[in-house]
Amino acid sequence: MLMGKEEKGKPRDREVREEDNIGITALKSDFPEWYSQVVLKSGMADYAPTAGCMIIRPYGYAMWEGIQEFFNSLIKKTGHMNAYFPLFIPESFLLRESEHFEGFTPEVAWIHAEGPVEYCCRKCSGKVGKDDIKCKNCGADLEGSGRQIRMECPVGSERYALRPTSETIMYDSYSKWIRSWRDLPVLINQWCNVVRWETKATKLFLRTREFLWQEGHTAHADKDGADREVLAILEFYRQVIEDLLAIPVITGKKSENEKFPGALYTTTLESLMPDGKALQMGTSHNLGQNFAKAFGIMFRDRDEKEKHVWQTSWGISTRLLGAVVMAHGDNKGLVLPPRLAPVQVVIVPILFSGSKGKVAREAERIRKKLSGSFRTEVDMREGYSPGWKFNDWEMRGVPVRLEIGPRDLAGKQVVAVRRDSGKKSIIRTGSLEKQLGLMFSDIQKGLYMKAKKRMSDNTVEVKSFDGFMKQIEKKKMVRAAFCGEPACEESIKEKTAATNRVIPLRSGTKYV
Amino acid sequence: MLMGKEEKGKPRDREVREEDNIGITALKSDFPEWYSQVVLKSGMADYAPTAGCMIIRPYGYAMWEGIQEFFNSLIKKTGHMNAYFPLFIPESFLLRESEHFEGFTPEVAWIHAEGPVEYCCRKCSGKVGKDDIKCKNCGADLEGSGRQIRMECPVGSERYALRPTSETIMYDSYSKWIRSWRDLPVLINQWCNVVRWETKATKLFLRTREFLWQEGHTAHADKDGADREVLAILEFYRQVIEDLLAIPVITGKKSENEKFPGALYTTTLESLMPDGKALQMGTSHNLGQNFAKAFGIMFRDRDEKEKHVWQTSWGISTRLLGAVVMAHGDNKGLVLPPRLAPVQVVIVPILFSGSKGKVAREAERIRKKLSGSFRTEVDMREGYSPGWKFNDWEMRGVPVRLEIGPRDLAGKQVVAVRRDSGKKSIIRTGSLEKQLGLMFSDIQKGLYMKAKKRMSDNTVEVKSFDGFMKQIEKKKMVRAAFCGEPACEESIKEKTAATNRVIPLRSGTKYV
Repeated sequence: MLMGKEEKGKPRDREVREEDNIGITALKSDFPEWYSQVVLKSGMADYAPTAGCMIIRPYGYAMWEGIQEFFNSLIKKTGHMNAYFPLFIPESFLLRESEHFEGFTPEVAWIHAEGPVEYCCRKCSGKVGKDDIKCKNCGADLEGSGRQIRMECPVGSERYALRPTSETIMYDSYSKWIRSWRDLPVLINQWCNVVRWETKATKLFLRTREFLWQEGHTAHADKDGADREVLAILEFYRQVIEDLLAIPVITGKKSENEKFPGALYTTTLESLMPDGKALQMGTSHNLGQNFAKAFGIMFRDRDEKEKHVWQTSWGISTRLLGAVVMAHGDNKGLVLPPRLAPVQVVIVPILFSGSKGKVAREAERIRKKLSGSFRTEVDMREGYSPGWKFNDWEMRGVPVRLEIGPRDLAGKQVVAVRRDSGKKSIIRTGSLEKQLGLMFSDIQKGLYMKAKKRMSDNTVEVKSFDGFMKQIEKKKMVRAAFCGEPACEESIKEKTAATNRVIPLRSGTKYV
Repeated sequence: MLMGKEEKGKPRDREVREEDNIGITALKSDFPEWYSQVVLKSGMADYAPTAGCMIIRPYGYAMWEGIQEFFNSLIKKTGHMNAYFPLFIPESFLLRESEHFEGFTPEVAWIHAEGPVEYCCRKCSGKVGKDDIKCKNCGADLEGSGRQIRMECPVGSERYALRPTSETIMYDSYSKWIRSWRDLPVLINQWCNVVRWETKATKLFLRTREFLWQEGHTAHADKDGADREVLAILEFYRQVIEDLLAIPVITGKKSENEKFPGALYTTTLESLMPDGKALQMGTSHNLGQNFAKAFGIMFRDRDEKEKHVWQTSWGISTRLLGAVVMAHGDNKGLVLPPRLAPVQVVIVPILFSGSKGKVAREAERIRKKLSGSFRTEVDMREGYSPGWKFNDWEMRGVPVRLEIGPRDLAGKQVVAVRRDSGKKSIIRTGSLEKQLGLMFSDIQKGLYMKAKKRMSDNTVEVKSFDGFMKQIEKKKMVRAAFCGEPACEESIKEKTAATNRVIPLRSGTKYV
């Protein structure tokens, strides 16, 4: 640690330590390594001590809150309401709709918790009494933390699944709540954690054993109502992904092989990531009457007849945050679309010892002024040089950085630097709000257009299976005619490792 | 079902069915029965098919969202940020702080999920291969849902607790994230579900095996910082509970026996419910350096020395919604404070066949106009009489009901009925917004004052142990001198079943 005298006129960067060298050391071309460095070093997320899980840190969680707010406002305006159903799903519920059960059980985590509570010795695991002081078996001391609790599962008692998705537990309630056409539609959504016990390697935001999502579950009087709901939500998802996250998607229908277990049909939003892999961004399912029949969800219609409801379910998850990293990030780190960015503009005062107070006050004055319109921060951290701060905020993807030094103060101006292009411009402090507003629109649109161009540059249409194989090897997204047969799809998947992502929705085409 | 001809000039109530008789049939004096009827029939919550769990229905969840919004705005303004940590806590973490472990393990639910995945026959539970078609043991058909997954827990592998609270898993991360005084304070909160495997009977919102809460976890450079945080949060909680929920509380410190396992001291907000029982509304703990030492959370201070941080944790849960029901409800059902009510004002048009269109249009016009200022609904449900609707909205606790019929239309007025007092008044439509605003303030304040009076009427000061016992038997909250000895407290609890709720915080008294 160097504690030398502060040189006059030199920015204070004396205290930067080795461990503060936090830049991204992998290029985006080295994709998996680059991806985890960006997620970790930007402070979006961290690996959890629990294998296969992740910690969503405040910076990443603030983006999730942005998505929640945006989507909540869309669904609430259209009459949907949030609710909360239990984490624990009785096994018998999952068994009722067999396709659904088969689709989910390989990754379900179960809890056995209905049996009598028993105590055992931490050392030898032998059974001990609740108030025993010493283990009769191995003689270990049982006080303090020497005793542990064991829940035994007696034969025949029911297991609970930790929800991998909530269709079954919600629809059991729907069967009790819905009686008449007057009770329809039921439009319920929930924001919650779900558990899918993945055995493959963890990828932050993309594959973890627990993740956060929203799941909407609606019930309607007829197929038409359910069809319309599926498409309305698909459009809301498009707005979240394209308008908020600036990521272009192709919307359409999943093939029979790829649809949700238990659904009549599944609609999806697919995007192409820079590593050449397609990413499913969200899905909206028409469940038909499959679950209604399995759970007995009936209503008395206006014509006095008892009918099964038609249902939909739909979800987007914290995976979207992984997509944001991949779609827009560059060699310096994260690049955030302004509408999503937790910090839209950061002010970095350039503090020289002669003018320090004045510049700091001006930076604070600007922060206050901008705070009414934008999510603004001023970086007054001690012991870091302006250059270090620039790198830090660039790595964190903040759309615009404002630099203000003594000369800017005198000239009533600031230097604005765009994260997307690195372009610098000088802005008069008087027109700062207006100029920033324009800049944010431009960045938001620019990020979207750039990602859209990349997607179309990497999508090709083919007419032959030879051409198809060649393009798949080149990691292209391929547009091709498809007969629709599940067996045929299976065989293509085996030969090429390509999956059928989406049957695009063309305007004017009735696709269901 | 009567489908007779619609009589001219008679409100349409022909379709009301027996099962629509949804009023509360228990008096508030029959407290437990009254409580569950109000929670269930108002649509706030429902029992779950999973034993010991609850479903928070949209009407109840909207109130929880109200609490979230209110509290989030307080903590975010003061620099706290939300995050998300895993549901699964390695057992070894819980063991590190022994007081904490002892306090929580009796109600922890464990998951064994690290072993190899095995498959077993649903019929005989015998081990089978993943792709077996028939069970070798009992001959059962294994296709469809005849096979189940078993996760074996090999000897020595780690169990995971479903979080009963997140101190340990969060502080493991804090030990990695915190390096320097510059990283402090760390001010993180999370909204999540927690699991405490209760064995007593379920009480909706008050005792369930899973509930929702927020848990704040902060780290500070010194005790003073942690002390100030504990009190700042206690004051935010007071605002949530007194200002938003209109429930008076006594704030103060818990005794040694009642403090949080692992804390240095616990502060609490206690209220007295109409059944004579005290209810803990929220707690804010100074954890001292106990967890910092157990998890090695160190920072290099300005003086270059390595020090342990000082920590706090604090939480409020969906239990608060149960308190709202108990504190304000009456024989007709729920009574909601306007600031919390998901629907603040409901318009019930009185539809006679001659003037139906005009009245409906006016009701809708008023709804639109009020919607800018208040959470407003208009009840256009077909097939229910106005009287039925009045009862329904009263049961659901909506603060003000507006009735509008043909005569009101002609007189440019509406009839306003307050839920708290039942008082009717006629309001000119021109001054509706202003009058409603005043009415809401008055109701909010009135509910608080009424609950406050009930609490002070039922709180007595005693000077002798005889007096103490008498008052406790009368279900009073008793203010008494206390020596502070845990053994003494234990003995009082045994003799009287009374628990020491709070050592009140008096202004001017330094209590830590």
